[in-house]
Amino acid sequence: MSIDFLALANAGVDKLHPYQPGKPVAELERELGISNSVKLASNENPLGLGAKAKAAIERALPELARYPDANGFALKAALANKLAVSSEQLILGNGSNELIDLVYHTFVSAGEEIVYSQYTFIVYALATQSHGATAIEVPAKDFGHDLDAMAAAITERTKLVCITNPNNPTGTFISKANLQAFLAKVPKQVLVILDEAYTEYVLPEERHPSIDWLSDYPNVIVSRTFSKAYGLAGLRVGYMVAHPELIGVLNRVREPFNCNSLALVAAEAALSDEAYLEEAVSLNRREMQRYQAFFEEQGLRYVPSQANFITLALERDAAPVYDALLREGVIVRPLAGYGLPTCLRISIGLEHENQRCMAALAKVLA
Amino acid sequence: MSIDFLALANAGVDKLHPYQPGKPVAELERELGISNSVKLASNENPLGLGAKAKAAIERALPELARYPDANGFALKAALANKLAVSSEQLILGNGSNELIDLVYHTFVSAGEEIVYSQYTFIVYALATQSHGATAIEVPAKDFGHDLDAMAAAITERTKLVCITNPNNPTGTFISKANLQAFLAKVPKQVLVILDEAYTEYVLPEERHPSIDWLSDYPNVIVSRTFSKAYGLAGLRVGYMVAHPELIGVLNRVREPFNCNSLALVAAEAALSDEAYLEEAVSLNRREMQRYQAFFEEQGLRYVPSQANFITLALERDAAPVYDALLREGVIVRPLAGYGLPTCLRISIGLEHENQRCMAALAKVLA
Repeated sequence: MSIDFLALANAGVDKLHPYQPGKPVAELERELGISNSVKLASNENPLGLGAKAKAAIERALPELARYPDANGFALKAALANKLAVSSEQLILGNGSNELIDLVYHTFVSAGEEIVYSQYTFIVYALATQSHGATAIEVPAKDFGHDLDAMAAAITERTKLVCITNPNNPTGTFISKANLQAFLAKVPKQVLVILDEAYTEYVLPEERHPSIDWLSDYPNVIVSRTFSKAYGLAGLRVGYMVAHPELIGVLNRVREPFNCNSLALVAAEAALSDEAYLEEAVSLNRREMQRYQAFFEEQGLRYVPSQANFITLALERDAAPVYDALLREGVIVRPLAGYGLPTCLRISIGLEHENQRCMAALAKVLA
Repeated sequence: MSIDFLALANAGVDKLHPYQPGKPVAELERELGISNSVKLASNENPLGLGAKAKAAIERALPELARYPDANGFALKAALANKLAVSSEQLILGNGSNELIDLVYHTFVSAGEEIVYSQYTFIVYALATQSHGATAIEVPAKDFGHDLDAMAAAITERTKLVCITNPNNPTGTFISKANLQAFLAKVPKQVLVILDEAYTEYVLPEERHPSIDWLSDYPNVIVSRTFSKAYGLAGLRVGYMVAHPELIGVLNRVREPFNCNSLALVAAEAALSDEAYLEEAVSLNRREMQRYQAFFEEQGLRYVPSQANFITLALERDAAPVYDALLREGVIVRPLAGYGLPTCLRISIGLEHENQRCMAALAKVLA
């Protein structure tokens, strides 16, 4: 008895491919006969779990057989206080990935157009595909968003524009003035996701007051995460900030227990752990400068980055370089899947991890 | 500047309402001037987190700044071994709620019909609504599924049939023979979710060999959870078992990091903790008998249950009884939202909690 399940599925699903996870580090090491490799592939925080978040998790363990607070009351109150917004402007998710999907589930239907940039966070392309919407991928300019072209790409069929800033996987950054000028051009019935997963790494004076803009641009949704600078990638917690009525509509579709109990308490604790955040950001800045100096010294081209990773733009196919680095015990991210087959993205690690990476690069490229 | 966000949303969203979370216990106690209340409202495991799961969580904390294993390799291997299926037949979710929604996202489109029973798990009605599908709610028989009527309700527009067994919120159970006879009647292009969230509480000799049935019925998807008998509601982890090709299609739409790292390791540990499971099930059976004896002694009508809760069917509006129990410090679940305004669902707690509940019921109903 045989059923064609793909034929039963919704439009667009046939063109999606299941996520191909990277090999677990332990398995990779066994295969290659190496040990002690460094993972600089997923833009994770190399400091590991912060002490305050750890303590909060340990305190919450006795209640773990209970369902989470479906409303995330305490975490939303802490975020509201920190961001100077109301709790009604906040929605919490199982990572910002879930919230991006939720925006699509709630607002995007088949045939509507979604505008995003070439070389941006792959979830936008995947969600567009899985909802049967039409992707309007605007060619990148200098590895980043071409805002003039994106504005010109908006039509009356456009439902959503997605902007990642700093951009992943290239690290490019749109200045305040340019971004605000762009938002002013977007018609109000077109929603804009402003994905700021890496915003904590941006220099404070360059960081956008994007949340202040919400009163002028009620069609804008700011997306942030605890997976990067706050060091909680394994727990899955992200949030969005927007107009309370927009958040109210999203809450109609949200699954009630989407954020797990430990994510809620750990994120609240991480938010209060200013020392951890400061250490993460200053380590990142220091080591980013070291990478840049190294690339310049080696005559290597790279994309200047405001995030916690840096993209190396080689003059040749990056796949053999990626493989050679692996054999040196250094795991980075190849970007062929993003349409950048000559690029490698390197997450900024601890000092000794970055040293390993630079030594391996020097050896491999020699 | 005002935008009608609901008008921008997809069909069906306007008829959904945001989840109204119950008040946190602490807040409720403050309001009512009580303390030490018992929560028998959410079918949680009263034993709390098991020792093996706790140890696994503690071991995993140092790696929590890393993303989870997107493929849940170790947990799927453990489940595959336990259930005698292949890992390709398994998909893991952020609670089974996420997986139910995933089945809808993947397979259900606007206008298709979904058949489910009156008085069943509310997520089926919500997902049907949020996907713009047409609900075919079949009237219940004796508080449970009327399988003959459900079979008769299947048309060529039916995409999915949802069966919860044991049923939530009524605890009713469909016998092996009846369920198998029903499945034999369902056309193969109609998917069936067999939601077995409470299956571990069923007497082993009555439990369905539903996973063995999958080879005969490749349109069936068995859904299970670690939130009940395994005591991990706060961590959010559920799974589905089905034909590998069906699972493959779901994996195209699944978010890669939907299961958090601690859920993965805790569920794997819980699966190996047979002593915990045995204690949970035997406590439940013992205390269920005590509730039944008490109800019979008090001349109260109840729905016989195979789950970890029991539904009391009063001869009058249950709301005042619910309120009076609250003031006695006993929190149960009113079922008016399920169309059962004379019923209260009581989750089976620890012995002293159940004693509190029975004493309060005797007092309130006197």
